[in-house]
Amino acid sequence: MNWKSEILAAQHRITGYAQVTPVMESRALGLGYSVEMKLEHMQHTGSFKARGAFNTLISSDVPEAGVVAASGGNHGAAAAYAAQALGYPAKIFVPELAGPSKIALIEQAGADLSVVPGEYANALAAAQAYEDASGAMQIHAYDAPATVAGQGTCFAEWEAQGLKADTVLIAVGGGGLIAGALAWLQGTRKVVAVEPETSCALNAALQAGEPVDVSVSGIAANALGARRIGSICFDLAQGVQSVLVSDEAIAQAQKALWRAHRILVEPAGATALAALLSGAYTPEPGERVAVLICGGNISPDPLNG
Amino acid sequence: MNWKSEILAAQHRITGYAQVTPVMESRALGLGYSVEMKLEHMQHTGSFKARGAFNTLISSDVPEAGVVAASGGNHGAAAAYAAQALGYPAKIFVPELAGPSKIALIEQAGADLSVVPGEYANALAAAQAYEDASGAMQIHAYDAPATVAGQGTCFAEWEAQGLKADTVLIAVGGGGLIAGALAWLQGTRKVVAVEPETSCALNAALQAGEPVDVSVSGIAANALGARRIGSICFDLAQGVQSVLVSDEAIAQAQKALWRAHRILVEPAGATALAALLSGAYTPEPGERVAVLICGGNISPDPLNG
Repeated sequence: MNWKSEILAAQHRITGYAQVTPVMESRALGLGYSVEMKLEHMQHTGSFKARGAFNTLISSDVPEAGVVAASGGNHGAAAAYAAQALGYPAKIFVPELAGPSKIALIEQAGADLSVVPGEYANALAAAQAYEDASGAMQIHAYDAPATVAGQGTCFAEWEAQGLKADTVLIAVGGGGLIAGALAWLQGTRKVVAVEPETSCALNAALQAGEPVDVSVSGIAANALGARRIGSICFDLAQGVQSVLVSDEAIAQAQKALWRAHRILVEPAGATALAALLSGAYTPEPGERVAVLICGGNISPDPLNG
Repeated sequence: MNWKSEILAAQHRITGYAQVTPVMESRALGLGYSVEMKLEHMQHTGSFKARGAFNTLISSDVPEAGVVAASGGNHGAAAAYAAQALGYPAKIFVPELAGPSKIALIEQAGADLSVVPGEYANALAAAQAYEDASGAMQIHAYDAPATVAGQGTCFAEWEAQGLKADTVLIAVGGGGLIAGALAWLQGTRKVVAVEPETSCALNAALQAGEPVDVSVSGIAANALGARRIGSICFDLAQGVQSVLVSDEAIAQAQKALWRAHRILVEPAGATALAALLSGAYTPEPGERVAVLICGGNISPDPLNG
C-alpha cells in the first residue's frame, strides 16, 4: 500500500470535518528539556479517532443500514459524531468499562448505543454479529486501512505545523494511531510506542513475534485496552522501540499536564508523556522529542459530575 | 508612550520565560461560524498574567526586599512564579474570594501569602501598606505600563501566529489585558470588551466618562472583579464597544469549550466567548472573530479536589 498517498487523500477528504488541532512546545513539564505536543484531545469528541471515522465514512458507500462500531468509548463517540455529521444512522457497542463520560458522548451524538458486559473484545463480537444481521458497515477502531490512513493525517498535519522532533512518542492501544504515524513518517523520525504495563498488546506481540492475546486492566484500559494488536500496526511496527509505563506514572503525567498547562486529559492522553516523566524513555543529549496528546475524555466529567 | 516599541521590547525580554501559547480555529462551538482562539490559559500559572509579571521584573531593579503583589489570584500566582523563576522573594496578598485553587498555586510558587478579608481592593490596600513598610517593589495587576506592555505581547505573538480576525473579543477585569490589546493593535482590528454584568468596571467608566467604583460579584469575580478600571486601560479604551454577559452565559460558554474541545477554564476564561454564544455581540456577515481564552484556574481543581 502506498501509505503516503492514502494519507494525503484522507487529509483532503476530512478537511472541514476534522478539527485542525493546535501544537505547542513546553519546557514546563519538569524534564529539563523541551517537549513538543500536539493537542489532539481537542479533536471532535475528544480524541484522534474522529479522523479515521470521517475518512472511512467519506470514502465508502455507506449502506442504508448505516454504520456500526465497537469501541472502548472514544472510537464509538467519533463514529457516532461522524455518522451524525454526514447523515447516517449509527449503532455503537461499548463495554461496561467505557464509563459514563464516554457513554454520554455517544448518546449526545444521537447514536443507538448498546452497553455490553466485559471488555472491548466482547463489544467487538457484538458489533460483528450486528453487522452480519443488519448489513450495516463496520468501522473498525484500528485495524482497517481507512482508519489507519485517517489517523495518519494527524502526523501529516503536525509536520505542516512545523514539527521538529527527532522522536515522537505515541500511546498504543489497538495500534491505529501509531500505525498512522509509522505509515506517514516511514523512518524519517523515530517512533516510540508507549503502553501501560497492564494493557500492552503491541509489546507482547513484538516479544512473541506475532500478535497474541493479552489481558487488559488499569486506569487507561477503556482507551488502550485492546486484547490483541491490530495486524496493520503489527506489520508496520517491526523494529519499533516499545516501552511500558505504570498506572502511577500515567496519573503523574496527567497531573503534570494539568499543573503546567491546564491540559486536562484522560489517562490514555497522558500515557506517552508518562514515558518521559518516568524515565521509561530517556532521550539522548540533543535529541528532540514530541508527544501526541491523544485523548481527553476524563471521567468523571468535571462539568457534568 | 510608544506602545508598539514597548511591547516589542517586552516580547524580547520575556522570551524563554513566558510560554508561547497555542492558537486554533473552531467551527464546533455551535455558532454557525468559525472562531479563532488563543489558548492563553495554558500560560504558566494558568493565565496571561505571567507575561506582565516577567516583563515587570526583568525590566526593573528589584530591591532586596523583593516584590509584592495584590491579586484576585491569577496575578498573584504569576508574580510568585516569575519571582521564583528569577530568584526574588515574593509577598502576595489575596482576598478570601481567590479560592483554594488559586491560593494553592501561589503557595506552590514559594511565595509568602496573606489572605485578606473582603475583595480585591482590600488586598491591594494591604499590599500598598506592605510596600511602604518593607521597600518591596509593587507589581500592579493591571494599571502599570510594564504590566500592560507585557500583556500586549500576547497579541504580538498571536499576529505572528497568523491571526486573521477582524474583531477580537477580550474579557475585562481591571483592564490590563485589553489595554495590551489596544496598545498593540492600535485600530488595525476591532476590539470588543466583554464584562460580567456584575463586575463591569470598564462599562461603568465608559458610561460615566471617567473611572468610577463599582460593586463586584458573580462567578468570575475572583478574576474580573476590579472595583475600578485602570487608568491606562480607560485612556486606551475610549470608543471601544463594551458588552455585558450574565453568569449563566459564562457558565454555558465554559461548558461549550469543554464539550467541543476539552478546554477546561475558569469563568473568566470563557467570558469573551460568552458574548458570542449569548448574542451580546453578533458579528456582521463575513466578519471574522477571535476570542482570547485568558484563564484556566477553575475551582475546584479537578485533579486535587
